[in-house]
Amino acid sequence: MTRTDLHIGLFGFGVVGQGLHAVLARTPGLRARIGRIAVRSRTKPRPLPAELFTFDKNDLLGDPALTVIVELIDDADEAYLIVKEALLRGKAVVTANKKMLAEHLPELIAIQQQTGTPLLYEAAACASLPVIRNLEEYYDTDLLESVEGIINGSTNYILTAMHRDRQPYAEALARAQALGFAESNPALDVEGLDARNKLVLLLAHAFGLVVAPADLLAVGITAISELATAYAREQGLIIKLVAEARRLPGGRLAAGVLPTLVRPGHELAQVHDEFNGLITQSTFADRQFFLGRGAGAFPTASAVLSDLSALTYGYRYGYKKIQQNAHLALAPDAAEVEVLVTFDEANAPAEADFSAVHEQFRSAQRGNYLTGTIGLGQLARAAWLRRPGVSVVRLAGPLRATMAP
Amino acid sequence: MTRTDLHIGLFGFGVVGQGLHAVLARTPGLRARIGRIAVRSRTKPRPLPAELFTFDKNDLLGDPALTVIVELIDDADEAYLIVKEALLRGKAVVTANKKMLAEHLPELIAIQQQTGTPLLYEAAACASLPVIRNLEEYYDTDLLESVEGIINGSTNYILTAMHRDRQPYAEALARAQALGFAESNPALDVEGLDARNKLVLLLAHAFGLVVAPADLLAVGITAISELATAYAREQGLIIKLVAEARRLPGGRLAAGVLPTLVRPGHELAQVHDEFNGLITQSTFADRQFFLGRGAGAFPTASAVLSDLSALTYGYRYGYKKIQQNAHLALAPDAAEVEVLVTFDEANAPAEADFSAVHEQFRSAQRGNYLTGTIGLGQLARAAWLRRPGVSVVRLAGPLRATMAP
Repeated sequence: MTRTDLHIGLFGFGVVGQGLHAVLARTPGLRARIGRIAVRSRTKPRPLPAELFTFDKNDLLGDPALTVIVELIDDADEAYLIVKEALLRGKAVVTANKKMLAEHLPELIAIQQQTGTPLLYEAAACASLPVIRNLEEYYDTDLLESVEGIINGSTNYILTAMHRDRQPYAEALARAQALGFAESNPALDVEGLDARNKLVLLLAHAFGLVVAPADLLAVGITAISELATAYAREQGLIIKLVAEARRLPGGRLAAGVLPTLVRPGHELAQVHDEFNGLITQSTFADRQFFLGRGAGAFPTASAVLSDLSALTYGYRYGYKKIQQNAHLALAPDAAEVEVLVTFDEANAPAEADFSAVHEQFRSAQRGNYLTGTIGLGQLARAAWLRRPGVSVVRLAGPLRATMAP
Repeated sequence: MTRTDLHIGLFGFGVVGQGLHAVLARTPGLRARIGRIAVRSRTKPRPLPAELFTFDKNDLLGDPALTVIVELIDDADEAYLIVKEALLRGKAVVTANKKMLAEHLPELIAIQQQTGTPLLYEAAACASLPVIRNLEEYYDTDLLESVEGIINGSTNYILTAMHRDRQPYAEALARAQALGFAESNPALDVEGLDARNKLVLLLAHAFGLVVAPADLLAVGITAISELATAYAREQGLIIKLVAEARRLPGGRLAAGVLPTLVRPGHELAQVHDEFNGLITQSTFADRQFFLGRGAGAFPTASAVLSDLSALTYGYRYGYKKIQQNAHLALAPDAAEVEVLVTFDEANAPAEADFSAVHEQFRSAQRGNYLTGTIGLGQLARAAWLRRPGVSVVRLAGPLRATMAP
């Protein structure tokens, strides 16, 4: 088998870009070298010779000697223009930009299929864990029932610090940022939007379903109340930010991101700090669990490296399941979920939105909560969900089909 | 991309073969059908029409319409003849026979490279977990430092039943056999030989090192004494059968299978019943953990199915690391390990074999033990290791380079 040599044009030289440079220097077996690096800041000091850098993206996109573009910049809109242009010019692309991918996936898949040019993005979901490629290749025939897990390292770092080390939220967030785990805009992490973007990628490769991020409910960790935290502690449960996609009867599929109460023996309770953990459930292989670092320069760079290696062998995603599973459709109104809602007096949830209310607790001193069953679509539409003073945490148990559809 | 249709000649119709038949019937997306099944017994009742079966292997090997051979028989010697003949006739082969593979790997790799005919065997290690393909493809550039885990479902089922359910050994073994987890010759499982065969496969795909099973130390679970079990319980540790391969400085590599004391917070302590768990440690991705069913008809069949799917896209193992890592060599004398040895008075281990003895305990009533450090090669050569009344369990901690080589 002949391997292609890779001449890389690299966009971005932040934490991951520098990690990739360091990692490439230590893997001589992969015949890849970085030919040019495009960066934005003209003033930032660089640890490499100045002639390697340019501030003009066309110096990379227009250079026929650079056969591969690695896109590791922060700005998703700019990343989209770069990736699209590169693919249309026949350059293979490796990217870790999940926001850009989630927002433009249909077009980027279409361009790959038109041009035959590969776009790989293993680093965009669960960093070093080989999630995308396994869903695409290994679980392409077995019948996947669900994919669920902790897929944002930064919020898991924060939740771990709050639960295990009793750190306040703000301190834990600052530390996650200092360690380079958080997105530069932390709202993407803590509002559950980064996890939702990754869930869009998982849906495409696990189930062949391409949706827009806005089609999926995402509840983050910022609103989690002290009462919800106390409730979890009293029940001996741990709050984790869990993304889930699950096949329901009749070709319907439910997916979303929600803070979730997890019992200590559960696989996801073993996912600490910035680690990610993913559980697949399939008809024949049954339950599987994958655990690994979900953030950080080297783990992310190692996934980029693996994509580069795959390019040398002509690998590309086949997106087979998009055709195989054309009958599947997202149906949030076909799913329901058990939740704990804490709220202040001025912002009580509408009880009529719930298909069942199990417990109600009111206390002028401690606050109020209810537990109940609610449709996933209903929850997404509820005006009270986004009000200040309202906190929604999923009680244990998967998304499930509603009793009366 | 065009997919090849698969016309399968199936050898063996036991638990896994029947599982594969059931699984294929439910995956119409994979264009594969079983054309003919070769079985040994002429009297066993079969759930399928008689004309599908033959008792002559040449009916499959000589039929040019059958493009793929799936080998799922028990007899490793016969399996070797079938697989070799099929490859030489240009038929792609999928097998789950780890004993056959481990014993004939160098020749089977050479035949694949001569003929270009693929031989896939994901089901031969950790059943449904995508271990071989990930080691081969995903971790082909990152620098793997170690692979360790629980890779025999049957012994893990037995150890779980003994530890958690306080079942006696014989009862737990009988139950593992009744559930179809155990090899038909249970000595392969309980003597650690099945785990060693799988370790041979892991070594080839993780490190590019092809060794014979006999080159690796394997200690099973049959000799584990009551005193060793009591020691574990008193220390709050759990006995697991752990296979490990670890890179040492200077291109040396140590590998073996040993009962091992695991602390409750360790990933491998979360591997229950017939599940398998594998930990990879690599320079950039760091620590990763994979958990899934390591035995059973459907999990094993799902791995066979995934190999079949890979064949439709022309996949074959590249064995890239064999050339990349030609400098690596097995060096048991470069590694040492901490062990607990229990023994009766007549069979004391030779203290001179240890580089350090840490604790000694002698009791006419409870028995005797010592803990100490011993070279891996020294342990493998020790005559006392195989004496009745002697039990060796590894204390926590990885294989490590000896202080004075």
